[in-house]
Amino acid sequence: MTRVADLPTPALVVDATALAHNLATMAAALPGGRLRPHVKAHKCTSLAREQHAHGHHGFTCATASEVVGMARAGLGDDLLLANEIVDAARIRAMADCGARVTVAVDSDETVDAAAANGIREVLVDVDVGLRCGCAPEEAGRLADRARARGLHVRGVMGYEGHAQGLTDRAARAERTERAMARLARAHELVGGEVRSGGGTGTHDLNGYVTEVQAGSYALMDTAYARLGLPFRHALRLVATVVSVRPRYAVADCGLKALGMDHGNPTVEGAQDVLYCSDEHVVFTAARRPRVGERVLVLPAHLDPTVAYHEVMVVADGPGLDATVVDEWPVDLRGWRVRA
Amino acid sequence: MTRVADLPTPALVVDATALAHNLATMAAALPGGRLRPHVKAHKCTSLAREQHAHGHHGFTCATASEVVGMARAGLGDDLLLANEIVDAARIRAMADCGARVTVAVDSDETVDAAAANGIREVLVDVDVGLRCGCAPEEAGRLADRARARGLHVRGVMGYEGHAQGLTDRAARAERTERAMARLARAHELVGGEVRSGGGTGTHDLNGYVTEVQAGSYALMDTAYARLGLPFRHALRLVATVVSVRPRYAVADCGLKALGMDHGNPTVEGAQDVLYCSDEHVVFTAARRPRVGERVLVLPAHLDPTVAYHEVMVVADGPGLDATVVDEWPVDLRGWRVRA
Repeated sequence: MTRVADLPTPALVVDATALAHNLATMAAALPGGRLRPHVKAHKCTSLAREQHAHGHHGFTCATASEVVGMARAGLGDDLLLANEIVDAARIRAMADCGARVTVAVDSDETVDAAAANGIREVLVDVDVGLRCGCAPEEAGRLADRARARGLHVRGVMGYEGHAQGLTDRAARAERTERAMARLARAHELVGGEVRSGGGTGTHDLNGYVTEVQAGSYALMDTAYARLGLPFRHALRLVATVVSVRPRYAVADCGLKALGMDHGNPTVEGAQDVLYCSDEHVVFTAARRPRVGERVLVLPAHLDPTVAYHEVMVVADGPGLDATVVDEWPVDLRGWRVRA
Repeated sequence: MTRVADLPTPALVVDATALAHNLATMAAALPGGRLRPHVKAHKCTSLAREQHAHGHHGFTCATASEVVGMARAGLGDDLLLANEIVDAARIRAMADCGARVTVAVDSDETVDAAAANGIREVLVDVDVGLRCGCAPEEAGRLADRARARGLHVRGVMGYEGHAQGLTDRAARAERTERAMARLARAHELVGGEVRSGGGTGTHDLNGYVTEVQAGSYALMDTAYARLGLPFRHALRLVATVVSVRPRYAVADCGLKALGMDHGNPTVEGAQDVLYCSDEHVVFTAARRPRVGERVLVLPAHLDPTVAYHEVMVVADGPGLDATVVDEWPVDLRGWRVRA
């Protein structure tokens, strides 16, 4: 029987009890097809299988390798690549992977690439204030072009990513509403049964979309934790204190184990994280730790953290004394599409 | 014949001409054993083999998996784990890997773990102002403890990492000098023929160490480029523009392809990088790119960028028209020690 405190470090650890809470809470809020879980957050078909068991049979992906990997895992009922792609070989791999695959398009080039490489269904991706997507007023023309190329247009998508992180709920709601007004203008021109969008931060605010693309809710991170959502931290890293100085301690979990775009991680029980370097997190603590002691680290941003790791260990609780019950490969990482 | 512009994206691309310049320039400045290249920067035994061919036969590692991987690649003449470790199984794996392995120690616990698990040689790691290492005045006692446990103490190490990034050369020199004064105090107490330290930013300023642990010089990044060093950018990412909006463009190289602790990457030929998201870099450009066009991206921080990738493609020049001549696995990433 291995405990979390016995694991070689650094290691990603999933608290199965918190994960179960998060999956059940979301499935109650957005049952079945109302949620299209985004696998980019966890990149793990074992975790996706848990989401499938909670009634969500359609999934959102960010890369062709995620789409093909999900199909290979038998989770290809209805896969949406919620991202633009023009790579012919990768589009062909998705078209040939045996799953129902829908691809986002926002330009003539992406429509043409999908049609030329065997894709049958698309969503028109609409600029709702962030990143990709066509202008709402262009959406009808793009849909017509897609239909003329033989593609079935299932509807529209628009991701209000710029609303997700707003800690003030009213501000989040207001920005979501403005974003969805743009999506609605596009949907009038495009038609179709699908309006896809939303995320963990707006899952209970976005009443316009027919399906929510949330992913982070399953495992969570410290950025989303500030929003007061009903989801718990289900992912930590366990690290070993390798050096103790008078004013701080150093554990073996650094820049190659943590996505850093949202800033420093949080060390549970510590006072402050001073900085991270390639293989280290440097922190202060009221009680001076000893060399060899384990600490638990909460990532600031889930997605780029998980992408550094080969596996997630699954434990039966949140602490160092929890028992390891499983190990899940992070099998959807990387961009190569495996034959 | 594959050109860089034909690669599936995102992909790491090494400019072999710039790499050769960097390796030759460093080998001239710090020939043979004066340089102990740090493999944590590139995590690639193929690149380490090039460094070996330039006369550097000892290497610096940050993890046990790097040590064991280097030994397996036949590059185990003299490997230094310049990091503290207490994991018995991983220490044992290093001790049994067939290479000459020296481990850094800075506490009773790390000395005892090394001695108990088959390590034969150590350096006393000294706090020279950053992170790990014992106080200079403790170094003699630790060396005595190591010798009493049967370990050969080769000398001292101290990494002035807090000096590396200072863009003002005089400030960098001054901080290096102060750091090395601490290392010298420790060396007087410890003895031994090795004084190890330094990095790319101080490789020509640190005249105290007997060997410099530089790694980034081989491939470089935009942070080190600000220092006016004689090394060229030898690593880029090639990305594909997947969406073009009136005010910006979006390419497929994001937070899971780039270490972000030093901030945004640089898109060659662009005006500004607005932000990165999980799979995207969003940038402005004077000339509006078209969908499908390739761009080259310079990482802000090399080490955590490379750690996201399975392979580096090697090309015969810096541009999109360069020809792909090889592919090197990033075979030292991750922490698992392979049997």
